[in-house]
Amino acid sequence: MTATATAVTDEGGFVEALRAHSRRYHDQHPFHVRMNAGELSRRQIRGWVANRFYYQENIPRKDAAILSNCPDPEVRRRWIRRILDHDGTAAGEGGIEAWLRLAEAAGLTRAEVLDHRHLVPGVRFAVDAYVNFARTRPWVEAVASSLTEMFAPDLMAARLAGFERWYPWIAPEGLAYFRARLEQAPRDCEHALEVVTAHCVSAESRARAVDALSFKCDVLWSLMDAVDQAYPE
Amino acid sequence: MTATATAVTDEGGFVEALRAHSRRYHDQHPFHVRMNAGELSRRQIRGWVANRFYYQENIPRKDAAILSNCPDPEVRRRWIRRILDHDGTAAGEGGIEAWLRLAEAAGLTRAEVLDHRHLVPGVRFAVDAYVNFARTRPWVEAVASSLTEMFAPDLMAARLAGFERWYPWIAPEGLAYFRARLEQAPRDCEHALEVVTAHCVSAESRARAVDALSFKCDVLWSLMDAVDQAYPE
Repeated sequence: MTATATAVTDEGGFVEALRAHSRRYHDQHPFHVRMNAGELSRRQIRGWVANRFYYQENIPRKDAAILSNCPDPEVRRRWIRRILDHDGTAAGEGGIEAWLRLAEAAGLTRAEVLDHRHLVPGVRFAVDAYVNFARTRPWVEAVASSLTEMFAPDLMAARLAGFERWYPWIAPEGLAYFRARLEQAPRDCEHALEVVTAHCVSAESRARAVDALSFKCDVLWSLMDAVDQAYPE
Repeated sequence: MTATATAVTDEGGFVEALRAHSRRYHDQHPFHVRMNAGELSRRQIRGWVANRFYYQENIPRKDAAILSNCPDPEVRRRWIRRILDHDGTAAGEGGIEAWLRLAEAAGLTRAEVLDHRHLVPGVRFAVDAYVNFARTRPWVEAVASSLTEMFAPDLMAARLAGFERWYPWIAPEGLAYFRARLEQAPRDCEHALEVVTAHCVSAESRARAVDALSFKCDVLWSLMDAVDQAYPE
């Protein structure tokens, strides 16, 4: 999808063009489809959890890059919430910690997740590309790239149901991260959409926002590709 | 002072080498000396307040750059406090707002401070250099550059006394920023010093930390130079 093809002149069409990217969201990836259908082995689940951790631990750094590039204190005051959500305000809290508990519930040790021994190059490249995007691109584009959160609640609800049904060997407490995101993602996404629609009023800037979201879909898809390759049936 | 000259092998000597930079802190600048001695005109005070605002409004962006570069969630959890202090957690709060109130108390309008009409190039260059340093250098060096806070409480106490004595036309409420920093700077500086002494254990890394602090002294001094030039007697 090119910038020209997605250029839109009204806000409704713009939001529509953004939402259309749900078709390219990583919940459609064969590996994710198999995950939610209960077809993954313990080894595959662990491989995904350990690799996805690299994404999780980089989220606050991506969001801090957006903060650093954003000149508007009002936007920063809301955006900083994301960093607090992931890092927590004390040791043992926050989304990164919750993901480590998921890893433990799935039978991994903290150490083997934290030291990246399972991290495959394609996952590292995709995540680094995302952080780099947030650091180097105009901050509104970086905000637009976060709009995959529009599609996250559906994915989280399906994933939660899938894990509870198919992978009962993972203790329910391990799924707390997914539950938290069910509430956080809609709040975060509402703010991001407000920012993007307020700042992107020209056809050109709207096209760039759509491209940023497309890029983010590529990041998540590429991450899934790399895990799929590294942990075959 | 070169990196080689400041290389130190024990932690005490390292902290000593850092503290020695108090001699190069901007409170020694002729313009600042005249400020505290009550020798500045209203026009000069306003010029300094309006220009220094550019530094104030960029502090959260500098600190977010450090957050973005820092891989340690524990450090981030404490560092983020600085951003919350400056941006506040709601409109009308925080250090940037407090500086705007100082500007109003000094007879400037918010609009003329926010639109940078008084901002002189040398101040912009110095502040941008500081933000750029935090974005591009290793995060521990960026933390070390913040250590001018070791010298801030003495400056703030002297400045507060000077303003109350010599510039009674500035309403006391306008000085709230200085009062807040009297408490925040020692807490911030204690954390930064902890981080720097924990991470800089080689002579080389200690020399780089001292250089970073030296760079920051240059930033503040250069800012003062530019204001001094723009607002002569």
